[in-house]
Amino acid sequence: MPVRVVGFDGDDTLWHSETRFSMTQAEYRELLGRHVPDANIDARLAEMEMKNLAIYGYGVKSFTLSMLETAIDLTDARIPASDLEVILGWGKRMLMEPTELLDHVERTLKQITGRYDVLLITKGDLFDQESKLARSGLGELFLGVEIVSEKNADSYGGIFRRRGINPAEFVMVGNSLKSDVVPVVELGGYAVHIPYSVTWHHELVPDDELPLEGWRRIDAISELPAVLEAL
Amino acid sequence: MPVRVVGFDGDDTLWHSETRFSMTQAEYRELLGRHVPDANIDARLAEMEMKNLAIYGYGVKSFTLSMLETAIDLTDARIPASDLEVILGWGKRMLMEPTELLDHVERTLKQITGRYDVLLITKGDLFDQESKLARSGLGELFLGVEIVSEKNADSYGGIFRRRGINPAEFVMVGNSLKSDVVPVVELGGYAVHIPYSVTWHHELVPDDELPLEGWRRIDAISELPAVLEAL
Repeated sequence: MPVRVVGFDGDDTLWHSETRFSMTQAEYRELLGRHVPDANIDARLAEMEMKNLAIYGYGVKSFTLSMLETAIDLTDARIPASDLEVILGWGKRMLMEPTELLDHVERTLKQITGRYDVLLITKGDLFDQESKLARSGLGELFLGVEIVSEKNADSYGGIFRRRGINPAEFVMVGNSLKSDVVPVVELGGYAVHIPYSVTWHHELVPDDELPLEGWRRIDAISELPAVLEAL
Repeated sequence: MPVRVVGFDGDDTLWHSETRFSMTQAEYRELLGRHVPDANIDARLAEMEMKNLAIYGYGVKSFTLSMLETAIDLTDARIPASDLEVILGWGKRMLMEPTELLDHVERTLKQITGRYDVLLITKGDLFDQESKLARSGLGELFLGVEIVSEKNADSYGGIFRRRGINPAEFVMVGNSLKSDVVPVVELGGYAVHIPYSVTWHHELVPDDELPLEGWRRIDAISELPAVLEAL
């Protein structure tokens, strides 16, 4: 069955996201390090994020709340409120930064929208994702936008039903094996994996849990049109 | 044209929400009052929420971040981190509380699902809204769920297009004139307003901006089946 619908992930597939979390986390490490020089700050923050995931979900606001809680926790509440105010400011800065597209994204998307129905399928905070899309200038290129709280077989299945998509005519493009490749291949769709330079630990999948076929990896989004043609 | 699709708002239409914000805000007023007895805490928090709305959007996480920022602001950063930890805890408590349905909601919804396509159309934080719906036990009663960052003519129009709904066969049921009544009537749909005991100031609409027809008000959701029959 020929490809009819192409879904794109947003964060770290179309625009930079994880590097911004990393950059903020480096500042956080330095700020907290002044109070608790011996603490493994990255590990403690990662633990806190995982513990809070079921309560907060993904996104910058959740990240900010977890940074604040970790800072209070690690310093036994000795951290001054002025430092916590700095952390609050980082969260706002992340939410307001211009959306920085990855290389070749705009040109490739324009090539593809003429030939296929193109959807944006992202996970995370609804408000933040919509705001990023608006600031990206790419809004007009998508036939539809789906923002889900978690990308798994259930949520992709829901999108297929709602939009009358046969998985055999669907290709998902993204940087996460866990969110963009595994569930789509499981449902009978095809996936194209474009690795990003930084991957959040939570998105890693052990090699032996990866599907053997139904997906491939490319190095850059500019290779995508030829890959779709050949399917 | 007979009614085919009925949309329900969630917060303060199906389940309690605003009373929980009010209860937390009362505790907040007391906690901050110990540091700044002369400040108009409610007014300052409301200002902060409005200022942050374009950055954070709606929801409990946004509310928590605004409470923290207001507390630091009002005390000139003299508030101890242990008090800010208490505020963080309130946010989590709000996110984890069981979903408390309003009276007659479950029975009325069950009556209505047999006769009409029923949608849940809520605004706010995606993760929080999905989690509340899951905890409500009502999930099976909805044909579809739409969570939008803002309820206006644009977002309702998008739902109508995606789902092939003719506004003339659509009725929206909710407690907010601004979000559930005005935009739906504007698009040619019908709205049923069920006031809630507490209304967030942001959701108020001056009387002279209300549509003259295309909607009506009832006192309780139990009156809804008869209203739909009569349309």
